[in-house]
Amino acid sequence: MVKRIGILVEYDGADFYGWQRQPGFRTVQGEIERALGKIARSSIELHGSGRTDRGVHATGQFAHFDWEIAIQPDQIPRAVNSWLPGDIVIREAKELPVAFHSRYHCKGKVYRYRFYRDRLPRALQNRYAVRVGWELDEEKMRRAARTYLGTHDFKGFTSARCDKENTERTIYHASLKREGDNWEFLVSGSGFLYNMVRVMAGTLIDIGRGRLEEDAITRVLETKDRRLAGKTVGPQGLTLEQVFYSDEERENWLKTVNRLDNSSRVL
Amino acid sequence: MVKRIGILVEYDGADFYGWQRQPGFRTVQGEIERALGKIARSSIELHGSGRTDRGVHATGQFAHFDWEIAIQPDQIPRAVNSWLPGDIVIREAKELPVAFHSRYHCKGKVYRYRFYRDRLPRALQNRYAVRVGWELDEEKMRRAARTYLGTHDFKGFTSARCDKENTERTIYHASLKREGDNWEFLVSGSGFLYNMVRVMAGTLIDIGRGRLEEDAITRVLETKDRRLAGKTVGPQGLTLEQVFYSDEERENWLKTVNRLDNSSRVL
Repeated sequence: MVKRIGILVEYDGADFYGWQRQPGFRTVQGEIERALGKIARSSIELHGSGRTDRGVHATGQFAHFDWEIAIQPDQIPRAVNSWLPGDIVIREAKELPVAFHSRYHCKGKVYRYRFYRDRLPRALQNRYAVRVGWELDEEKMRRAARTYLGTHDFKGFTSARCDKENTERTIYHASLKREGDNWEFLVSGSGFLYNMVRVMAGTLIDIGRGRLEEDAITRVLETKDRRLAGKTVGPQGLTLEQVFYSDEERENWLKTVNRLDNSSRVL
Repeated sequence: MVKRIGILVEYDGADFYGWQRQPGFRTVQGEIERALGKIARSSIELHGSGRTDRGVHATGQFAHFDWEIAIQPDQIPRAVNSWLPGDIVIREAKELPVAFHSRYHCKGKVYRYRFYRDRLPRALQNRYAVRVGWELDEEKMRRAARTYLGTHDFKGFTSARCDKENTERTIYHASLKREGDNWEFLVSGSGFLYNMVRVMAGTLIDIGRGRLEEDAITRVLETKDRRLAGKTVGPQGLTLEQVFYSDEERENWLKTVNRLDNSSRVL
């Protein structure tokens, strides 16, 4: 009997050409499908909650596939991990209703963007964070981050390569965290367009360094003009942390993050 | 006129065959010597405070070299970094007395060993930490860590490949830090034998999981018997953080670490 299995996936994106299978390239989807195929001895198609770009990481990507293998879901992570390279790990697995779909039923996502302020690069952080050389105005950036909250047309925060017709998205949470010179932009939304988190983070950084005015975000949301937004900052700073499949899951996440991190909450 | 230049070096050891130059292998010393050679247009020999093994990282390795290039020390990092791969960064440079020697004048070092407790691997931590699958008895480990303090013969904590005649070393600081499932063993000493920090960390972990008795460290120090100590844990968890060149520098570090981290101090 065919079973639909959902998996929670963590990966270090640095050495992958992104999520999506591409013949001749090392991709996350490609590697997992290959590992599943070894166990199933047949071709398995994996459906992710969405793609991540080349170099982007994940601690909480979600994906599903169908197979007929008689293996308990709690034994799937170890079984599949033994066929996977060290930079992909299946963290959890569960059986799902056959009607469930990782992409269509997604109710929102959480991304974290990491950057550090330093005059010189840091060899041990470059894989997971982006360096910013300029002084940053933290208060200005915190105020600006709040502008992202709510439902807006984010057309101006995506790249020209975005082919989505509906570019309206809702941002539930957007906050900045700083420990010394290490900064994080944490954002949760109903969905994200191509490059959207990287443009959002880049715009905040450009506001912080004074290259853009504090009201730049409002102006991009109004005009939908990509040229008024900031740079698309590097993929290595970005991590997909969570995918929500119910409003309740999303609400619980918001409660937790607001309780844990009261100092930087923006909601 | 020949100038002796000291450099503070950070590197991600994961993709290097260790510090020491070896023909045909990618090593940290080899890469830096090549970069210096490009600038000097002659062969430059780099002297580190000591070697680090294959896979071991550094945020504060120190090294020196001699050259006749008329470049201000504060411009050296950018100049050399432009010839270096991204996983090595020269963080600082200064001119030193010609009598100074990175290895002979070293008054101590600081290492940090990172591990995490988890049933499954973590794709985003595997490069810089080691996974421990067992439950750990934190209090037992904290008490055991104190046993390392002071001057002892550490022959039992080194590998058979260690060819040092004098195996006596002084440990100034040894503490455990834990945040959730992420653990760190922080140790400062007059010097460290081959594999010594990795055996020290492995012995603590083996005590914590109950594979070794709580007094194992005392017994190894007394008997000098390597077989009574714990496993040599993986190099990826280890980072050389600092090299001291004066007693004052060392004392200041101890004061700072004890003030910052009062909960886990062992001195």
